[in-house]
Amino acid sequence: MPQLKFDITITLDGYVAGPNQSVENPLGEGASGIHDWAVKTRAFAEMHGRDGGETGANDGVVRESFENIGASLMGRNMFGGGPGSWGEDPWRGWWGDNPPFHTRVFVLTHHEREPLEMEGGTTFHFVTDGIESALEQATEAAGAKDVHIGGGAQTAQQYLRAGLIDEMELHLVPQFLGAGERLFDNLDGADIRLDQTRVIETPEVTHLKYRVLK
Amino acid sequence: MPQLKFDITITLDGYVAGPNQSVENPLGEGASGIHDWAVKTRAFAEMHGRDGGETGANDGVVRESFENIGASLMGRNMFGGGPGSWGEDPWRGWWGDNPPFHTRVFVLTHHEREPLEMEGGTTFHFVTDGIESALEQATEAAGAKDVHIGGGAQTAQQYLRAGLIDEMELHLVPQFLGAGERLFDNLDGADIRLDQTRVIETPEVTHLKYRVLK
Repeated sequence: MPQLKFDITITLDGYVAGPNQSVENPLGEGASGIHDWAVKTRAFAEMHGRDGGETGANDGVVRESFENIGASLMGRNMFGGGPGSWGEDPWRGWWGDNPPFHTRVFVLTHHEREPLEMEGGTTFHFVTDGIESALEQATEAAGAKDVHIGGGAQTAQQYLRAGLIDEMELHLVPQFLGAGERLFDNLDGADIRLDQTRVIETPEVTHLKYRVLK
Repeated sequence: MPQLKFDITITLDGYVAGPNQSVENPLGEGASGIHDWAVKTRAFAEMHGRDGGETGANDGVVRESFENIGASLMGRNMFGGGPGSWGEDPWRGWWGDNPPFHTRVFVLTHHEREPLEMEGGTTFHFVTDGIESALEQATEAAGAKDVHIGGGAQTAQQYLRAGLIDEMELHLVPQFLGAGERLFDNLDGADIRLDQTRVIETPEVTHLKYRVLK
C-alpha cells in the first residue's frame, strides 16, 4: 500500500520554524541553522543540481526521505507568497525554476489557481477543497509510490489530527528556538498512537521514525 | 568536578505533566502512562524497596540516573501539598515514610519550614532564598558527588536559564499529551547550547543525553 509520509526537522523545544517568517526569512528568525545537518549532505546537493556534499548517516536519511515518492503535499504557507489571493504576478515558490520535488505537488490553499508547471518534472497544483481531496489527488498522481508531506507545521497537524499519516520521521536537533511555529500544537486531543520504529543518532541530529497506529 | 544533572520523561509534544495536577492526580490528567517505561524497571523497584522489575537498557538508564548522586533539588510543586503556607499539618511529600532519594533534598519554596527528616536517609530542607542558594547548599551536602534536579519543569527551566545545569537527559516517549506542563517553555531567549553526548533507543522510549556548553 502506498503510504503518506512526513518528515521534518524539529528543535528540542518543539519548533520547526522561528518567529516572523517572511519572504526575506522564510524559516523565521533564528531558524536557518536547524537545517544545517541536511543542507550539508550529498543527497541535498544532488536534489538541487549541485555537486559535492557529505556522505554518511545523515545523507542516507535525506536520500531515503525522497525515495519512492510519487507526489507531494504542502500548505500555502510553505509554498509561500503570503496569504490571500494570488494577484497579478503570482508567486512561483521558493525554489527557482527547477524545484527539488520532481513530482506533482499539491498545495493546500483557499484561492484557486491554474496548475504551475516548472522545470525538472515539478508541477504545482492548487487544491481548494480540503486535505482529503488533496490527498486523493496526490495518491492518484503517485500511482504505486508514496505521498510525502513537505510541510509546514499546520499542514502536518491537519493530516495528523485526521489520522491520515502513516509514517513520521522527526529530525531532532539539540537546539532551542524559544519562539516560532511548534509542530505539535493544535492537536485538539486527537488520539494519536505511535510505534517507534527506528532511531539513528549522529552528533548533530537524532532521526526518530514512527509508524502511526490505525 | 561535581555536576548538576537533570533528567525527565517528556512526550513527543514536549509535556512532562498533564493538565490539572492535583493531590489525587499528581502527574496531571492523562500522564500516568508516560512513566511506565521507568516504573517497570528493577532499579525503580529497588529504590522503592520492592523486588522484581525488568532488567535491560531502560533499567540501566534509571540506575545510572541515581548513581553518584549526593543531593537533590526540587520545586515546591514537585514536593507537593499545594501552593501557599504549610499550615497546621504540613504535607510530607508524595513518597511515604521512606522516600526514594536517600540523600538531602533541597525544596525551593517561598515559605519557611524546619527540615523534615524521613526514613532511609532522606531529609527535606526548605530553601527560601533562591535557586543559587539551594544549589550551593546541595553542592555542599553532596560533597564529591553530583547534584540531581528531581523536577519539575519550572525548576528545570530556572536552572537552565541561569546556565547552571551541566548535563541533561530526556527520556522521550512516543506519546502525545496535548496539554499540561511543557518542559521547554519560558526560556526567555536564553542562549543555551548543547552537545548531544549519547542516545539509547528502546521500543518504548529514547534516552537523549546532552551536555550544556559553558
